[in-house]
Amino acid sequence: MRTSHFLVATLKETPADAEIISHRLMLRAGLIRKLSSGLYTWLPLGLKVLRKVETVVREEMNRAGAQEISMPMIQPAELWQESGRWEQYGPELLRIRDRHDRDFCLGPTHEEVVTDLVRNEISSYRHLPLNLYQIQTKVRDEIRPRFGVMRSREFLMKDAYSFHATADSLRETYNVMHAAYTAIFERLGLSFRAVLADTGSIGGSTSHEFHVLADSGEDSIAFSDGSDYAANVEMASAMPASTPRPAPSGTLEEIATPGVKTIADLCQQLGISPSATVKTLLVEGSEDGSLVALVLRGDHELNTIKAEKLEGVASPLVMADEDTVKALCGAGFGSLGPRNLGVKVIADHAAAHLADFSCGANRDGHHVINVNWERDLPLPEIADLREVVAGDPSPDGNGRLQIKRGIEVGHIFQLGTKYSEAMNAGVLDENGRQVTLHMGCYGIGVSRIVAAAIEQNHDEQGIVWPTAMAPFTLAIVPLNMHKSEAVARSAEALYQRCVDAGMEVLLDDRNERPGIKFADMELMGIPHRIVIGDRALADGELEYKGRRDTDAVRVPEGDAMAFLHEKMAAED
Amino acid sequence: MRTSHFLVATLKETPADAEIISHRLMLRAGLIRKLSSGLYTWLPLGLKVLRKVETVVREEMNRAGAQEISMPMIQPAELWQESGRWEQYGPELLRIRDRHDRDFCLGPTHEEVVTDLVRNEISSYRHLPLNLYQIQTKVRDEIRPRFGVMRSREFLMKDAYSFHATADSLRETYNVMHAAYTAIFERLGLSFRAVLADTGSIGGSTSHEFHVLADSGEDSIAFSDGSDYAANVEMASAMPASTPRPAPSGTLEEIATPGVKTIADLCQQLGISPSATVKTLLVEGSEDGSLVALVLRGDHELNTIKAEKLEGVASPLVMADEDTVKALCGAGFGSLGPRNLGVKVIADHAAAHLADFSCGANRDGHHVINVNWERDLPLPEIADLREVVAGDPSPDGNGRLQIKRGIEVGHIFQLGTKYSEAMNAGVLDENGRQVTLHMGCYGIGVSRIVAAAIEQNHDEQGIVWPTAMAPFTLAIVPLNMHKSEAVARSAEALYQRCVDAGMEVLLDDRNERPGIKFADMELMGIPHRIVIGDRALADGELEYKGRRDTDAVRVPEGDAMAFLHEKMAAED
Repeated sequence: MRTSHFLVATLKETPADAEIISHRLMLRAGLIRKLSSGLYTWLPLGLKVLRKVETVVREEMNRAGAQEISMPMIQPAELWQESGRWEQYGPELLRIRDRHDRDFCLGPTHEEVVTDLVRNEISSYRHLPLNLYQIQTKVRDEIRPRFGVMRSREFLMKDAYSFHATADSLRETYNVMHAAYTAIFERLGLSFRAVLADTGSIGGSTSHEFHVLADSGEDSIAFSDGSDYAANVEMASAMPASTPRPAPSGTLEEIATPGVKTIADLCQQLGISPSATVKTLLVEGSEDGSLVALVLRGDHELNTIKAEKLEGVASPLVMADEDTVKALCGAGFGSLGPRNLGVKVIADHAAAHLADFSCGANRDGHHVINVNWERDLPLPEIADLREVVAGDPSPDGNGRLQIKRGIEVGHIFQLGTKYSEAMNAGVLDENGRQVTLHMGCYGIGVSRIVAAAIEQNHDEQGIVWPTAMAPFTLAIVPLNMHKSEAVARSAEALYQRCVDAGMEVLLDDRNERPGIKFADMELMGIPHRIVIGDRALADGELEYKGRRDTDAVRVPEGDAMAFLHEKMAAED
Repeated sequence: MRTSHFLVATLKETPADAEIISHRLMLRAGLIRKLSSGLYTWLPLGLKVLRKVETVVREEMNRAGAQEISMPMIQPAELWQESGRWEQYGPELLRIRDRHDRDFCLGPTHEEVVTDLVRNEISSYRHLPLNLYQIQTKVRDEIRPRFGVMRSREFLMKDAYSFHATADSLRETYNVMHAAYTAIFERLGLSFRAVLADTGSIGGSTSHEFHVLADSGEDSIAFSDGSDYAANVEMASAMPASTPRPAPSGTLEEIATPGVKTIADLCQQLGISPSATVKTLLVEGSEDGSLVALVLRGDHELNTIKAEKLEGVASPLVMADEDTVKALCGAGFGSLGPRNLGVKVIADHAAAHLADFSCGANRDGHHVINVNWERDLPLPEIADLREVVAGDPSPDGNGRLQIKRGIEVGHIFQLGTKYSEAMNAGVLDENGRQVTLHMGCYGIGVSRIVAAAIEQNHDEQGIVWPTAMAPFTLAIVPLNMHKSEAVARSAEALYQRCVDAGMEVLLDDRNERPGIKFADMELMGIPHRIVIGDRALADGELEYKGRRDTDAVRVPEGDAMAFLHEKMAAED
């Protein structure tokens, strides 16, 4: 390809409303353009990258035995009513009406449609397992689309759905998909982790997320330094201490703490560590009007997902307002404590392991110190309530947890019978008995991967593509090509040899200054670059620079192809 | 691929609501399944075919210098308001509202979006011409979706848009696209014609349609037997006679014709030919309340598109009702004639060439015979009003027209400045002057091609794919594979050799009766078939049958690969 025949749409200025680096670079390098909030056009350069990701995903899905299909984007409301999601799904589900006033939606996901297909097509266990996938533009009407294609309203997704006569068969395919996803992200050259995850609104039992590691990631993931344990922090268990709780030593005492509103205030005033305090959070209970107090160590954060799974706690979690707190204990948020509350109390393992701790006195402007469970208040129900932190022991007993930021790009679920039961999808088993189908579903955010890869791979000059995702492998940049015949001849000859060798090469034959050409090729992230200029040519040489190299090296013109082949082979 | 790992979804019964052969065969062969009216899921077999077409289209578009992009399906109303199409477009435009109550539509086509993109990206003639395309699911909310994917609400389309600083440049790219389309349909192995076409609601000047020839086609196309002239009958010009009008010979006479309502009635009663009569059609004029009489020879049909282009005639064409006819001439439809109407009269060339013709007398139950222009009524304005018929001279003066049925699968337009003017899209030309962009647009119905190919290529047993579109090239059908070790061994060995040779081969390893396997492979239209059974194997032979062959031939097992290679090479 020649830049003279290719839409090079690089921008010098950073667009104002792009908050994160991948969004800025995708605009600046000319990968995408915004049409409207959350709606982006993929320009030729961006689409080349997107297609590379798509191809790797398709190849690995086929290799894993999944079969590609293509379902309509427009889905009839009736199927969503059958599964119950027509009511459950919020306004992200873009509902539409056709000219005959029938209700439809634009599919964010296709569980209903594919379950309907399979219940009509498959009647016997003999045709199972069946794993169907598609790579398709999905729609989610985000309330606040942002971060470019990272959270857009249209996005390209690979969604797969597997069907099974038994739970064992589902687990088997789930593992095959886990391996396929691993292969996909490895082939794409991304640093990633598969982590245990919450199944959320999709439902089902087991679930893993695949995260591309990047400091800008929205999710925190925890993984062991001593084993392959990894989980979304939402899901990572905080283990109870292995030693018994220390014995009380101090005397319970209520002290005046004027102006203290937070744990930090309290620690400063008392000269103690947050890990010697507890904080009490009042939340709504699952029964109307009931309340539950959650007690955590002062330095720990509540994990909402864990809390929502507790018996007696309302889901989704609702924090009580200050009036409710005052009505219950006589004090505001700043002096709320776990003693004598008259409601159910649940303490985190770490809070329950403390001796001689400080907490609110349920009297404004006052706290109590040297509080001890069983001596000063009953030991409450104990549960895992908190977010894990770096250094926590790994839940599998091996090593300690580290925390990194990740961008979720894949999610696989063992759905079980959630949809098949609601939609009455079953087959006859070996014994001729009707059994409900077991289902798995497996998503990959194809367009999201492009943005995540940039978050992980960029520098001051722009994008640094992993080889497998690069829109072009090699840029040939002739200097003064329009004036120097020698440069033009050399550039055209090398270009032709590269094309003949099957390389994806971009010849920058624009009549632009060298600085502009260099900047564009670096911004666009092309892994290899050959510069052809009169000065080096006079010595029979070209200049090579890898995208991550700091300096260019000279290469004899005659050795260029061998040199490039070697450089490219080294990357694979 | 093995049928045991592939969703073979053939049906014995023909679904009740499938009206045309391609729809029936696509359902029966397991290419598609209906989700809802006009919404189809492409099953693995169908998607394989669709992707083959898509790949050919993409390769030829790239070869022609077009660049692939991907625009959102959801388009903001503002752009459509700018072009004026928000109001012009009927209810086929599926309008939606997002959660913030903003208006959008699901794109049936992308002129507005791409023009907006180009006006923002391109400011100089130096970056033109630019030809951008995408292959994308489009939405058209058909009032009555039918014929399966032939007229569905979602369909896969390739749409390209070219931008130019001059009309000459547009014509050049238009010709390149014409050639690319020709290459696409030739590669797909389809019998087709490119024909002159009306530009319709898309607008612009020159336009060609590409039709796959098939008796079931909705369109009639006219082409010369003596040149390469071809046009949609809508557009084909009927040439004036080259001889002068004969002189009058009979005497004008009004005769009673009780019960005569049609030309056929009249001819029967008078014993004359329809070509010796004229019929008069009263239509609304372009000015409020005005009327125009259109006069055609009795055996000719009005061409609505030609009529709508006449000065003084309302567009779209509206026929006057019988009350209006009566009020004007005193008689009903059956006795309406061109004499003394008091409104503008336009006669078709053929009608104006008649002498001694018969026509309505403008008195119920009466006609006049031996009517002659200039003698009995003034010669009116003359125009080309009629549909051409087989045998008409070709408009280019070479040969005579033939008429065939076609299915429109592609349409290319020289749009000119219609959208760029409305949307204020221009560039600076060589002289630094702002000029309005010239635009072309080029569509191919990718999913429609699949149906059209079946309409053209099928027999009693099912689909007969052109090689380039076949989902598999070869079917290997072992008989009693699950009982005969020899058959299983031979089948597996041949299958492996075919896979290694890069053939797309389907091994039917299902435990089904031979008749079912044969019927399925024929229904699915696989071009080549090898049957492996104990009887022929005992002679060291396999059986080969091409999809169009009537009889199988025996091939020595050792020669099978060479034999297949030869058969396949012969097809290309």
